[in-house]
Amino acid sequence: MNKYSRNQRVTGITKILTENPNKTINLKKFTELFNAAKSTISEDIVIVRETLSMLAMGRVETVAGAAGGVKYICGVSQEESRIFAEEVCEILSHKDRLIPGNFISMTDIMYNPEIVHKAGVILASAFNELHIDYVVTVETKGIPLAFEVAKMLGVQLVIVRRDPKVTEGSTVSINYASGSTNRIQTMSLTRNSIKKGSKCIFIDDFMKAGGTARGIINLLKEFESELLGIGVFIENIESGHKLVEEYVSIIQFKGISPEGKSKLNPSEIFEKA
Amino acid sequence: MNKYSRNQRVTGITKILTENPNKTINLKKFTELFNAAKSTISEDIVIVRETLSMLAMGRVETVAGAAGGVKYICGVSQEESRIFAEEVCEILSHKDRLIPGNFISMTDIMYNPEIVHKAGVILASAFNELHIDYVVTVETKGIPLAFEVAKMLGVQLVIVRRDPKVTEGSTVSINYASGSTNRIQTMSLTRNSIKKGSKCIFIDDFMKAGGTARGIINLLKEFESELLGIGVFIENIESGHKLVEEYVSIIQFKGISPEGKSKLNPSEIFEKA
Repeated sequence: MNKYSRNQRVTGITKILTENPNKTINLKKFTELFNAAKSTISEDIVIVRETLSMLAMGRVETVAGAAGGVKYICGVSQEESRIFAEEVCEILSHKDRLIPGNFISMTDIMYNPEIVHKAGVILASAFNELHIDYVVTVETKGIPLAFEVAKMLGVQLVIVRRDPKVTEGSTVSINYASGSTNRIQTMSLTRNSIKKGSKCIFIDDFMKAGGTARGIINLLKEFESELLGIGVFIENIESGHKLVEEYVSIIQFKGISPEGKSKLNPSEIFEKA
Repeated sequence: MNKYSRNQRVTGITKILTENPNKTINLKKFTELFNAAKSTISEDIVIVRETLSMLAMGRVETVAGAAGGVKYICGVSQEESRIFAEEVCEILSHKDRLIPGNFISMTDIMYNPEIVHKAGVILASAFNELHIDYVVTVETKGIPLAFEVAKMLGVQLVIVRRDPKVTEGSTVSINYASGSTNRIQTMSLTRNSIKKGSKCIFIDDFMKAGGTARGIINLLKEFESELLGIGVFIENIESGHKLVEEYVSIIQFKGISPEGKSKLNPSEIFEKA
């Protein structure tokens, strides 16, 4: 059986913990993997905990009890978050991205794993304390981001469909009015997707007036479940009043200037530090 | 400025490398972060490399040249892959999952971050050597898996839409025949999604006769780009002949037995070890 040095054990422990955010890992997993005593592993974990904390890369928590162990909670510094938001603003403000109708082309950003991962950590960090059961999104563009947030929070992702052609058992559909155009739209979800009495957050790529978010609140009522938070990559603050009150965004979009320049800036959450 | 011990440096290096698969990280990033000499960091990296290799958790490669550094390539042992596939077969074979028409309900599996991450590592490992430019998928159910594969390979994700209502500039649409029902369907992709002359792989949740995969090959021809590989979570081998020849799957589905039991097993790639 292999013998591992402390350096080697902390390498393995860091990989396993950070790859399984918000999942409790029993110390037995480590004592068996590294053929080491529990006290030795506990010392290794102290090193990993202190280092991640020093580097503002999240934290390691101890979970007491029979099913206890340790778990990794994702995190990122305010400064790193702000620098990231500024970089994305810079990318998005390029004039090639302007689309007729006061829109910005941002699909490639929402499908870029490196960007989505960083955005996912920022949004997940805002909801770590809510202890939710599901991350909900609406297809299609916000799916990678919602998936990443679900992964960081260690919970199941739920994707609401825009068409009711869902093949998997009975579905619940609701109609809702888009807040900006007042157009009536439909969203559908399979009945067995969400357990009664669940706590959820809604994650999306973009929010204008918040009509979709309000639709999700109503859809969740059909599942006797509750929306505890909303997180979006970009919010349009030009459109004024929102149909929902509380939400977190990473970037604010203020429309296009008369000179044809997109007005974008990091959201206020990064200024509170 | 903080001083870090070797244990602390390998913790930070492991976190940064494994979180950025297939991205070359210059040693300067580490010398600055840890306020350490290049020779010290090089020794740290040897420890991380040896440990990940011993634990069959992927590998660390050195990239030479001015833009050089080190990068992490994901990996998982054959044994762990097979155990994972067996566990998912067990979950999927539950009789509550049977849907009229010889289908199995698997949406929750495809939206479970822990399962999708493991499946993503297995599929990405099969395509690591192809040095592709894009991971392509078709909405909706395969998106989280395709995203995870793209992340592990360090490349951009491209999502082909089923409806042509894409708002972002000119789109390319093709019609294709579903291999199993011969129904004509449409797929669309924004013109600027893929650069001319790119190498791609296609990732999806399920493959029956391979009609969608053949559609993707034809769509990519419109972008003067090439499909180098196909990876699916589950293949239906009951349907016999496939429209595409080469693909990788994790689980094989052989239909439902007369007793109403789903016939599922890990794919052959896990038996070659």
